[in-house]
Amino acid sequence: MKTAVLGTGMVGRTIAARLAELGHAVTVGTRDPQATLARVEADAMGTPPFAAWSEQNPAVKVASFSDAAAGAELIVNATNGGASLEVLAQAGAKNIDGKIILDIANPLDFSKGMPPTLFVKDTDSLGEQIQRAFPGTRVVKSLNTMNADLMARPGQLTDPGTVFVSGNDAEAKAVVAGLLKDFGHQDVIDLGDITTARGTEMLLPVWLRLWGALGTPAFNFKIVR
Amino acid sequence: MKTAVLGTGMVGRTIAARLAELGHAVTVGTRDPQATLARVEADAMGTPPFAAWSEQNPAVKVASFSDAAAGAELIVNATNGGASLEVLAQAGAKNIDGKIILDIANPLDFSKGMPPTLFVKDTDSLGEQIQRAFPGTRVVKSLNTMNADLMARPGQLTDPGTVFVSGNDAEAKAVVAGLLKDFGHQDVIDLGDITTARGTEMLLPVWLRLWGALGTPAFNFKIVR
Repeated sequence: MKTAVLGTGMVGRTIAARLAELGHAVTVGTRDPQATLARVEADAMGTPPFAAWSEQNPAVKVASFSDAAAGAELIVNATNGGASLEVLAQAGAKNIDGKIILDIANPLDFSKGMPPTLFVKDTDSLGEQIQRAFPGTRVVKSLNTMNADLMARPGQLTDPGTVFVSGNDAEAKAVVAGLLKDFGHQDVIDLGDITTARGTEMLLPVWLRLWGALGTPAFNFKIVR
Repeated sequence: MKTAVLGTGMVGRTIAARLAELGHAVTVGTRDPQATLARVEADAMGTPPFAAWSEQNPAVKVASFSDAAAGAELIVNATNGGASLEVLAQAGAKNIDGKIILDIANPLDFSKGMPPTLFVKDTDSLGEQIQRAFPGTRVVKSLNTMNADLMARPGQLTDPGTVFVSGNDAEAKAVVAGLLKDFGHQDVIDLGDITTARGTEMLLPVWLRLWGALGTPAFNFKIVR
């Protein structure tokens, strides 16, 4: 499948590499490809420059948000939650309409110190904001409840745990569930329409505290029943 | 241990019966014991009248909030989240100071329709509100992430899953963790101080959607790692 991954951070890179490894045609979208590839220093989070990663992943193309989206059937939103709506606007409604948006971002607000809070919650969600802003798209919220390594390779854990999907379009959710299985996810729970993304986005506060308590991000939620 | 369970709903009854079964001296606290025992009809939630339950559980005493609290070493807050602060005030600071408050309530707001939202979240929590309002107590937030049957008998599930504790007092958390093990909980994660209750209280929105998606409340969160 032709896929675009919007976002060049660790999450976008990890998902893009995994999609390429599974045989998908992947283009990473970024605001300004030349500027992104010209950067030679690690960013504020300590992430190594994108160009080095790109050299190691020659199968993954790099393009502007709009070019990446235009050529894709499925678009992964791997941007920071606070930038997601603006990035999708840059990608262009005409380039994303009718397509599946796999939204893996979280509405984290770092402006009030650590741990981050959520800039939308409880009565609305980032997934819903995206669906409302781009009504022609088919938004599926998923994967946002675990760290990037486990999103792409849940089999690292003896028990991979559970992954959730939320969205209004059954066919889009089925396509995403297929991808998730290819990634190695075994237990996919369909929570319902996109409003159920409120539930999974609100998992982030306990996820952050679990990271602190366990001393590692290598854990996942599993629904035992 | 001498325990008081504040609240006569299904959650309070289930916890009280389990504590009594395990050999603890249990008193259920209610606003007006005579009125509570005089009720003969099911409440709005369909819960049978308390008197019938009380007859079947003769080992569990019934008293006012203040009398129940005065005689207890550990107090379980099993009231509705919206009533918790007022109920603890009725119990009386002098009757609860120095004691462990096992807070199993959730800050559910039913005023905006279903599913309920949370009346406090993200930058504060019900657990913290209780600790601030009654600084002489030792609040431990726990058990609020599963339904009452599983709180008391997690062994009903093949894999009982995880239970979390949050609180400022290490000794109080150790006492609660011991009780949880007696209930049948095997995986107890100490998330840290009482501010980490923000995380577990914010699990409720996804819990409610999982209940809908799975068609049963007989499930629990497990942290696989």
